Amino acid sequence: MDIELYMQTLGKQAREASRVLSRASTATKNHALLTIAREIRAASDTLKTQNELDLAAGKEKGLEAALLDRLALTDSRIESMAEGLEQIANLSDPVGEISDMRYLPSGIQLGQMRVPLGVIGIIYESRPNVTADAAGLCLKSGNATILRGGSEAIHSNQAIAACIQSGLEQAGLPTEAVQVVETTDRAAVGQLITMPEFVDVIVPRGGKGLIERISKDARVPVIKHLDGICHVFIDSKADLDMAEEIAFNAKCHRYGVCNAMETLLVDSRVAATILPRLAARYQSESVELRGCEKTRSILTDIDVATELDWDTEYLAPILSIRIVDGVDQAMDHIHQHSSGHTETIVTEDYTTSRRFLAEVDSSSVMVNASTRFADGFEYGLGAEIGISTDKLHARGPVGLNGLTSQKWIVLGTGQVRV
Amino acid sequence: MDIELYMQTLGKQAREASRVLSRASTATKNHALLTIAREIRAASDTLKTQNELDLAAGKEKGLEAALLDRLALTDSRIESMAEGLEQIANLSDPVGEISDMRYLPSGIQLGQMRVPLGVIGIIYESRPNVTADAAGLCLKSGNATILRGGSEAIHSNQAIAACIQSGLEQAGLPTEAVQVVETTDRAAVGQLITMPEFVDVIVPRGGKGLIERISKDARVPVIKHLDGICHVFIDSKADLDMAEEIAFNAKCHRYGVCNAMETLLVDSRVAATILPRLAARYQSESVELRGCEKTRSILTDIDVATELDWDTEYLAPILSIRIVDGVDQAMDHIHQHSSGHTETIVTEDYTTSRRFLAEVDSSSVMVNASTRFADGFEYGLGAEIGISTDKLHARGPVGLNGLTSQKWIVLGTGQVRV
Repeated sequence: MDIELYMQTLGKQAREASRVLSRASTATKNHALLTIAREIRAASDTLKTQNELDLAAGKEKGLEAALLDRLALTDSRIESMAEGLEQIANLSDPVGEISDMRYLPSGIQLGQMRVPLGVIGIIYESRPNVTADAAGLCLKSGNATILRGGSEAIHSNQAIAACIQSGLEQAGLPTEAVQVVETTDRAAVGQLITMPEFVDVIVPRGGKGLIERISKDARVPVIKHLDGICHVFIDSKADLDMAEEIAFNAKCHRYGVCNAMETLLVDSRVAATILPRLAARYQSESVELRGCEKTRSILTDIDVATELDWDTEYLAPILSIRIVDGVDQAMDHIHQHSSGHTETIVTEDYTTSRRFLAEVDSSSVMVNASTRFADGFEYGLGAEIGISTDKLHARGPVGLNGLTSQKWIVLGTGQVRV
Repeated sequence: MDIELYMQTLGKQAREASRVLSRASTATKNHALLTIAREIRAASDTLKTQNELDLAAGKEKGLEAALLDRLALTDSRIESMAEGLEQIANLSDPVGEISDMRYLPSGIQLGQMRVPLGVIGIIYESRPNVTADAAGLCLKSGNATILRGGSEAIHSNQAIAACIQSGLEQAGLPTEAVQVVETTDRAAVGQLITMPEFVDVIVPRGGKGLIERISKDARVPVIKHLDGICHVFIDSKADLDMAEEIAFNAKCHRYGVCNAMETLLVDSRVAATILPRLAARYQSESVELRGCEKTRSILTDIDVATELDWDTEYLAPILSIRIVDGVDQAMDHIHQHSSGHTETIVTEDYTTSRRFLAEVDSSSVMVNASTRFADGFEYGLGAEIGISTDKLHARGPVGLNGLTSQKWIVLGTGQVRV
């Protein structure tokens, strides 16, 4: 198989399909989404049979249990995929939305119209449900998609792809609107990320290693999410009951997620009061605490946090704690160690809250709320294709709007430049 | 001189300065802009003396007359630079603008705050006025800048830089907020575009060769503008008097600009009526016409347009003309040959105008107005750092907003995820 030729063919087909998709009506796109959902439910047995092939191969290859779990398609996961597509059908269509139409001194009327990006390449790892989720979001936003899933999920992904193809066809849309790469050859990824003539943007979903590799080699823009090293800062003017609940929730609600707190910053003026209360809560959940020297003078039985700790996304029941002298030192720590994902301050002080909001340079900055809210569903985007820690284009949770662009439109009555 | 070390030092300094600049008040930034304008006017003689050095060296190197003209700093150009900075001071400050604050079911209040991008690298060619313009726009939008002008303008650029430094200092801002690269070594550009840790975005301004080179090698996002192959389509339902004025203006108002029309598309049903009228207008301005075979059956004395013509940005008094059968064929031609900059339809037909607006994928799409309006000043942006033909982030004329990003902000009253 000539991978270069194969990928270019997919690219050309996607580019042509994207023209059709960009002008497809909301009703047609929703019809396709709902039909795909129905096809997925109807194909439940086939999906599980194909998934069994992947699981068997994975076991043979010695994949670890967590990976096998992510790979597995159960009845409830199949139902979730179908429901996810139905939810996307219910979201309002961003394409064609016109905003800010205003008259200018020359007499022209200027505004902006939301339009699809064109062709989106999605590169992901073991979870086969991404195939349906990502295809659904791209379809609703009028984009053609080329999906490249993990080689360990190839049979599952192709079975899902068959449902998608069938739904597209029944809705009268080109089946090339969503294409799943059929080879597990790694060269296909290298090709996909270096075809700016056919692919407008790449969204990688997976581990940090995958994302770094792709960002390094890509010749098209990448909407990416690296670390989630999130901070909560308890200010001296915090409501300490509120601070305790937020700091507990931000760490313990879920451990393996990017918007969980990894480092707690506490103002020295309230540390002696709040830290023992918090330590008791954390220890009840068996969270391992690591602290700076000042922290250890209050919580005497915890380990020391090293420089490395401040830069680590644990994704685990581990928390590093640092005592700081005021908001400036807290923001300096964040500036130095944050991954730019999400930071929260707990405070009742007006000026301090405004400064934190304005000066902290992260994709989400919060006052008196848990970092766990930084999420497409919580933000009301309906669904998210990922969370971007980049600054250009999409920042933070990326929903349908993040998969679109805006062009300028001008309505005139014969104006010419003089 | 160790170029790598030198550029990294500039980068580090810019990164630090950007933190100060991002929280500088509107008043402080305006004070700096107005002071720089005053310094530039006061330094007029020095600027001209330093510019003489560049002009003399340019003549010696045998630079062509057009290039020398662009390089020259006259009294009126110096005054324009100062006025440009005063205009930027008058623009409203985009930084900190909060939009769309809304309450969500969880009780949190979510919105978006406009923030600077951070550090912007500007790479440009001979015009020294870009030094002041670009520095001004970046400063107002709260970004630190590293400017790398053409080697032929090095003395002029450094003299302007001295005015900028002085203005920053008098306003109490770090002088590292605007840094002009002091070496003419080409390796400095290579270094500037591959330091994602210090530079957030690159804006190249210059010829296509420069921009292609930079896009190819950059490891940071590039806001770029390649060709401006703009089209006007005269629909069968056009008001032909209006069509004549727009098609004439789009070509003849100025030739060497990116928003000038390069190809005229005419519906076959009105070609025999409108083309002779337009040909007379173009010939009065000595515009060379090249046409498809159908066009040449009406305008019998013009040359044939080859496939190459459809893909050429003439930037000159040359126009290619093609007769098409309806809006679909016109849009197919545009899809195939446009650079995605600006396209206009002239029509009185409701459905055709809506289809053209929705389906043409260019940064500006117009109905009944000259392509020449696609410009930051005409769009009311106040000034532009360039025109982007990319789809991600900024599309079309890039003003202050294009140099900023939006972060999410969340205001809570103690909410946690359940």
